[in-house]
Amino acid sequence: MTEPTLAEVDQTVKTWLKASRALVLQRMTTPLNVDEKTGRKDLVTNVDKENERLLVSKIRAFSPDSQVLGEEGFGDSVTDTTGWVWVVDPIDGTMNFVKQRDHFAMMIALYIDGRGVLGYIYDVMANVLYSGGPSLGVFKNDQPLTKPANLALRDGLVAISGPLITEQQMNMPEVVRQSAGLRAYGSAGIEFSHMLTGELITYVSYLKPWDFGAGKILAETLGLRVTRVDGTPLSMLSSDFVMVATEKAQQDILPIIG
Amino acid sequence: MTEPTLAEVDQTVKTWLKASRALVLQRMTTPLNVDEKTGRKDLVTNVDKENERLLVSKIRAFSPDSQVLGEEGFGDSVTDTTGWVWVVDPIDGTMNFVKQRDHFAMMIALYIDGRGVLGYIYDVMANVLYSGGPSLGVFKNDQPLTKPANLALRDGLVAISGPLITEQQMNMPEVVRQSAGLRAYGSAGIEFSHMLTGELITYVSYLKPWDFGAGKILAETLGLRVTRVDGTPLSMLSSDFVMVATEKAQQDILPIIG
Repeated sequence: MTEPTLAEVDQTVKTWLKASRALVLQRMTTPLNVDEKTGRKDLVTNVDKENERLLVSKIRAFSPDSQVLGEEGFGDSVTDTTGWVWVVDPIDGTMNFVKQRDHFAMMIALYIDGRGVLGYIYDVMANVLYSGGPSLGVFKNDQPLTKPANLALRDGLVAISGPLITEQQMNMPEVVRQSAGLRAYGSAGIEFSHMLTGELITYVSYLKPWDFGAGKILAETLGLRVTRVDGTPLSMLSSDFVMVATEKAQQDILPIIG
Repeated sequence: MTEPTLAEVDQTVKTWLKASRALVLQRMTTPLNVDEKTGRKDLVTNVDKENERLLVSKIRAFSPDSQVLGEEGFGDSVTDTTGWVWVVDPIDGTMNFVKQRDHFAMMIALYIDGRGVLGYIYDVMANVLYSGGPSLGVFKNDQPLTKPANLALRDGLVAISGPLITEQQMNMPEVVRQSAGLRAYGSAGIEFSHMLTGELITYVSYLKPWDFGAGKILAETLGLRVTRVDGTPLSMLSSDFVMVATEKAQQDILPIIG
């Protein structure tokens, strides 16, 4: 079998996401089954699991030699990044999904030999799909996105996760003070999407690979910095404090938190 | 002239808001003129001013004996609440309007002899209007809203404005810790709207009368508490730290911040 072109992969992933959205909307009409994972603020539902199983099965059928890294554990135990590695977050922002029935995302990323190739962030309730990668560009639904303005910290809004602020970690309150204001949406996918459109200029949170896998590809394609919070490179297979920022905001923030 | 019925007033206000939305969307296609009011985080634009002038002129034509309290000063200097008092916020969340081009609201409230009668929160970009009052009920566009679940603090998401968290005021970080998580949207109108749908169970911020005038009417109609942060009644003509909460969340929070 001939290897599919990137455009063909892109079209295929979009059909998966549309099918998954239909599944999720249908399941939202019946009561959720909610479980705690590591604690009361770390939730998983029957829909997270069912959607991950669906997406992983589609990936395996389409691309049987790939590895799959999935949040809910229906993929593989990935320890090296050789070849095709898919990263799947079936419901990002599960707390929002449970408490708000809105403001959550599905995310899929494709890495080949460790390089980000395609990323997808699907804001399910808004029905807005952010997609693309370094060779395709980045799209909001069918509309190409241009690079966000390279704004300094004082000129833009920042999203910093709750615990970093309430526990005063890494001088984050000072980052907020020097910015134009604090926002917090509770879903890495939603927060990455606001970075892509320039609505935020910084996003800092402790993230796992499925939280940043897609967003990193899309954000870097648009010239944004996606690093560990100290500015060093992220490992695609590790959890870390992640900073997404415009180049200027990164330059402003590093000395504050250093 | 016969006094209009409440249903007639309601229909009339909705026509104003639709016209104002069209104005704002049109003005967003041309560069904004942005000025600082009290500081770099307190902005006003040409669109705030033009829309307030438009709404105030419509109110004066429709209801010439009313007083009008408007954020940008095109109304009256209101010192007593006798008779009809309209409260107008032409663009709530001006920082979002400027930086995000999204997540801002228009708000109008009608008080008669100090009692809240009609409230309107219009999420402009989503084109969703929250409207109603104690005698009409509350609507999200044309869909009636039911009372949000009376959830305790630990069972829901809280929105608390940035400075209250970063400056550790009134033990607010502990309120966040005991909740299901922190959210921050940057527009009182958007935050009130998420209270109406049950997506948030608490919202705390320093607010001015035009920030809470409409939301208070709608939230109280749905059984939510809208008070000063110590639980005492708000004055409709004063700025204050305001807490919007479910009954249970209010009971949980008062001892934490007391």
